[in-house]
Amino acid sequence: AMTTTTLKGQPFDRPVLDSMLRRRMFYTPSFEIYGGVAGLYDYGPPGCALQSNVIEIWRKHFVLEEDMLEVDCTALTPEEVLKTSGHVDKFADWMCKDPKNGEILRADHFVEAVLEARLKGDKDARGIKVEEKEEDPKKKKKKVKNTEAVKLEDAVVKEYEEILARIDNYDGEALGKLIKDHDLKNPVTGVQPSPPVAFNLMFQTAIGPSSNAPGYLRPETAQGQFLNFAKLLEFNQQQMPFASASIGKSFRNEISPRAGLLRVREFLMAEIEHYVDPEGGKKHARFNDIKDVKVRLLNRHVQLAGQTTIEEMTIGKAVSNGTVDNETLGYFLARIQQFLFKIGVDPSKTRFRQHMANEMAHYAADCWDAELQTSYGWIECVGCADRSAYDLTVHAKKTGAPLMVRERLETPITIEEWQIDLDKKKFGPHFKKDGKTVEAAVEALPQDKREALAQDLQLDGKIKIEVDGVGNGTVEISKELIQIGRKTKTVNTREFTPNVIEPSFGIGRILYALIEHNYWTRGNEGGDEARGVLSFPPPVAPTKVLLVPLSSHESFKPIVNRMSRKLRSIGVSTKTDDSSASIGKRYSRNDELGTPLGITVDFQSVKDGSFTLRDRDSTKQVRADEEKILKAIKELAEGSKVWADIEKELPAFEGQEAEIPVLTKKD
Amino acid sequence: AMTTTTLKGQPFDRPVLDSMLRRRMFYTPSFEIYGGVAGLYDYGPPGCALQSNVIEIWRKHFVLEEDMLEVDCTALTPEEVLKTSGHVDKFADWMCKDPKNGEILRADHFVEAVLEARLKGDKDARGIKVEEKEEDPKKKKKKVKNTEAVKLEDAVVKEYEEILARIDNYDGEALGKLIKDHDLKNPVTGVQPSPPVAFNLMFQTAIGPSSNAPGYLRPETAQGQFLNFAKLLEFNQQQMPFASASIGKSFRNEISPRAGLLRVREFLMAEIEHYVDPEGGKKHARFNDIKDVKVRLLNRHVQLAGQTTIEEMTIGKAVSNGTVDNETLGYFLARIQQFLFKIGVDPSKTRFRQHMANEMAHYAADCWDAELQTSYGWIECVGCADRSAYDLTVHAKKTGAPLMVRERLETPITIEEWQIDLDKKKFGPHFKKDGKTVEAAVEALPQDKREALAQDLQLDGKIKIEVDGVGNGTVEISKELIQIGRKTKTVNTREFTPNVIEPSFGIGRILYALIEHNYWTRGNEGGDEARGVLSFPPPVAPTKVLLVPLSSHESFKPIVNRMSRKLRSIGVSTKTDDSSASIGKRYSRNDELGTPLGITVDFQSVKDGSFTLRDRDSTKQVRADEEKILKAIKELAEGSKVWADIEKELPAFEGQEAEIPVLTKKD
Repeated sequence: AMTTTTLKGQPFDRPVLDSMLRRRMFYTPSFEIYGGVAGLYDYGPPGCALQSNVIEIWRKHFVLEEDMLEVDCTALTPEEVLKTSGHVDKFADWMCKDPKNGEILRADHFVEAVLEARLKGDKDARGIKVEEKEEDPKKKKKKVKNTEAVKLEDAVVKEYEEILARIDNYDGEALGKLIKDHDLKNPVTGVQPSPPVAFNLMFQTAIGPSSNAPGYLRPETAQGQFLNFAKLLEFNQQQMPFASASIGKSFRNEISPRAGLLRVREFLMAEIEHYVDPEGGKKHARFNDIKDVKVRLLNRHVQLAGQTTIEEMTIGKAVSNGTVDNETLGYFLARIQQFLFKIGVDPSKTRFRQHMANEMAHYAADCWDAELQTSYGWIECVGCADRSAYDLTVHAKKTGAPLMVRERLETPITIEEWQIDLDKKKFGPHFKKDGKTVEAAVEALPQDKREALAQDLQLDGKIKIEVDGVGNGTVEISKELIQIGRKTKTVNTREFTPNVIEPSFGIGRILYALIEHNYWTRGNEGGDEARGVLSFPPPVAPTKVLLVPLSSHESFKPIVNRMSRKLRSIGVSTKTDDSSASIGKRYSRNDELGTPLGITVDFQSVKDGSFTLRDRDSTKQVRADEEKILKAIKELAEGSKVWADIEKELPAFEGQEAEIPVLTKKD
Repeated sequence: AMTTTTLKGQPFDRPVLDSMLRRRMFYTPSFEIYGGVAGLYDYGPPGCALQSNVIEIWRKHFVLEEDMLEVDCTALTPEEVLKTSGHVDKFADWMCKDPKNGEILRADHFVEAVLEARLKGDKDARGIKVEEKEEDPKKKKKKVKNTEAVKLEDAVVKEYEEILARIDNYDGEALGKLIKDHDLKNPVTGVQPSPPVAFNLMFQTAIGPSSNAPGYLRPETAQGQFLNFAKLLEFNQQQMPFASASIGKSFRNEISPRAGLLRVREFLMAEIEHYVDPEGGKKHARFNDIKDVKVRLLNRHVQLAGQTTIEEMTIGKAVSNGTVDNETLGYFLARIQQFLFKIGVDPSKTRFRQHMANEMAHYAADCWDAELQTSYGWIECVGCADRSAYDLTVHAKKTGAPLMVRERLETPITIEEWQIDLDKKKFGPHFKKDGKTVEAAVEALPQDKREALAQDLQLDGKIKIEVDGVGNGTVEISKELIQIGRKTKTVNTREFTPNVIEPSFGIGRILYALIEHNYWTRGNEGGDEARGVLSFPPPVAPTKVLLVPLSSHESFKPIVNRMSRKLRSIGVSTKTDDSSASIGKRYSRNDELGTPLGITVDFQSVKDGSFTLRDRDSTKQVRADEEKILKAIKELAEGSKVWADIEKELPAFEGQEAEIPVLTKKD
């Protein structure tokens, strides 16, 4: 089993980090004073700033640099839309109820937990030491505590292991059968739960005052983007390919969420829908820019063989050897990785895992997840799916809206096909009010049908076609009104429904992984216990600069205030700590918030306007005049320079961090 | 009646602007291909960029500059929270149903519409020409069409007018009585609607799989902030005053929304909750910074007198003469105005209107709205309410959480009060399992009650107090167990529940007003019809720069691409228009998007690397080398300079906009 380590390779202690994150209000359970609600969390000031910095970088990296069309669609969605997309019927988990205490259990998690407990009991009975398995937060379940040491038949052990390996493949009926056949009981009550029923994961509501307008909160931002496809194509002056993008909250009513920030009921997503011509191999015009980016891949075949070996290769090679299906998919994998590294994710804790055929969503043709390694295991943080033409096709079919691209052909082509000619002068008067309906039905006849009807017309002098809502549903048309013949036609345009490549970012999960990846503890200098540090890159850090006056001496105040105002005016967030704690202590308090820079205001500052600037990670300092210090801070905060650059440009400050212990007040 | 004008004083034509906004996809009805849902709109790329620019400025102006604690709380809210806040019981409108066609009507709007139609019919009958009244989108209602010219008794006219003047004051019963007494009929069906019933405006849902966890989508972001008060105070190291802030979606299930972007069911809010000590006059430390800001006020007394006269004065004077209640409220009015002007709102179309006593929310002690004038009339875009201690008090009472401030007194004070001493040794055994409950009830007794009980104890040797849930609800305590006496006590701390000043921004309404305020039409130069222009300040403009190559000549392409890349890398959004349309036409197309700057790439650019930079509003141009042009653009986009500054710094380009008509292709 893997052991998680901190940024500096120290053993990782999740409860310690978790308590730090709550204490510094990175996040907090929502409605805690009312007892809280599972799966709902609020971000406090540092979490919120971290989130908005990551979003700002995302927007620059994708929307601005790639010229994407950002839209902001509503979360409220009428039922019909999600019926068409398949979510009303398929976006569900199986749940059981304990008849004794009313507890609601997610069926697959329940089966897994009980079987794993039995297997553990068997090992205990056999005297085999069990190593704690890496947790999978996607399936985070209540562990069965206090397993009994009961030895099982060898055949039973094998059977259980096989069931567990295929747990994702059982539907409700099969899960129910497992519960019955193996007499799986809720350890809390000792009784078998009820047979599994489907529980849709969408939050339902009613839109407007009448009860006949059911709606849901969107489970993804994608549908709103698809519905606007025709308008976006028009906005883009009919140019293909192009992408839309959206940042917003989505909602999933998890049955019993338990993995902290990793499985929540309301979450921020950033989704891109890149529309590409399915013909011509889904090339990407800027593929060349990223073809040398190295990625760590865990492909489907390796997983099928029961392995987790990661292969590192350039994205160019991955596409050319067929590991990654096409350039556009490959392009986005590289761009996703560039984004993740830019915000400070640890490259050694990053991989792309290809979905197995059985785990893909109902619409997906291929899918790679960017997974980040945390103490919960490898976490899916960005999905990159090829949704094929599924969504645009179903919505177009349902609504009749032209969710497709009409492309002018460079050289027109001639095709031979069955054409229908109606005698409009007679046709209208003959069918009267039904004329338009019958005409539409005729025009919609496919080629094979037309061929058969042409024969009917020749043989019988008339044809019969089905027209919903006219007469008894079948309409007769005589040869006086219609002609069907094989003719050649010149075609100037080509129509196609684009395929969609969808990079979909779970921002909350990324933030959590980012925090774990940047966390470490500083040794107990000065007698204090080990202090947590969050080494966020300056552009994502919640606060950029800590202003520290040497003491509470009156002469420091105006300087601190002026610096604070100047930094804010150039868009740099600052905090001032003028408490009586030692300078070292004040800095280390802000290490927990991930503040990358510190300015010390001392007597020399009063005299000559110079300041020391301190780097959080190395605790190295430089000293320069105000203008140079401000310039350095701006460059670091924007990410155009790193500390090593500043160290080369500005003179090091070798003096000790002057500390004046203040004994009168307790910090 | 007021006539709306454009930025340049031209007559304003709303349908023309509206069609332009939809054509350029500033916004679009959500789910339009499914027939749409009233009150739901999506923002397209320009609307979305405008929104995120305004939010970014808001965050800098308030969160960063004022050092506010931003939080991001969930929209999903359990029922209990909104029951406590009063929303479950009071956040409702009255609705009626037409028994014939099932139409649902908002009761107050229905009464208004029918009475107004009758009054109009009366005027028609009397031959009085009726001027169209300014619309009030807060009450946007279906107008009754085709009024009949029927003369009314003078007394009836007076009665109707009085009803209309007080329409906001009627509850459901009173509205029902009006409908009955005056036989108000739905003009569509000719029948009286059913008696009004309360319709709660919150969207309801269920959180989790069990049906006993009802929840709502939040109708405001405020509650999440209040619930976190104790943690935020702790985060702020117990320092008062401070403010929390939140940007996020809220939801209101309007009965029948009709005023476009101004009355929607899902909307973005930015809310500040500033916590202030209710004692000491609610002073603000930075009031001096804004005391000379001039504001246009429409106070309560002027409105009560039936007037709409706006008084202009400094905020300093408004506070000192009592028009605005206190410094903190005044401070935020000034800061709100500074924000609105910064994003480009027209100062002459801005006012602050004080709420009348009867229109304030159930929690408010005082309230001023920043109203922006649009073609729909004066629109409430920012509310600035003094919510007093209402919310913190009710949540603290309900949950027992300490939503208050404990302040150490500089000098301890001595107070005399009625103190209770329990004989704990006897008390516990006497009351057994109820001991704790009875003790809590005793400790909670207020001073006046204690005084009375001290007498009882002396006279009867026992007291009776009410304790919910113990015995029959009344408990007897004898003098062996309790003593009550007047004693002095030294107090070191003061406890108080802060009052909340709440500036609450409806971002969608602000965006719509901003668009109207910046809209005008350019004369038909070159034979084209009048062209719409949106003169957004560069920092809020969706796209900052249009890149225009003179023609499709191959030598321009690499230069255009390089400039585009350079601009993006400094965070400046650009579009390239390399279509064959004339340069003038390409610029004016982007006037509709509000793009403030244009760069022309011509043969001179190829030769010497110089470019012309064009200002959207004046159509003036300057010419300089790449570096200077990029610097100017960055300064304009950030708002650190305006065009007039650039005109002074860089040489004017006097040459005509070179236009090479391309005849081969049609634009």
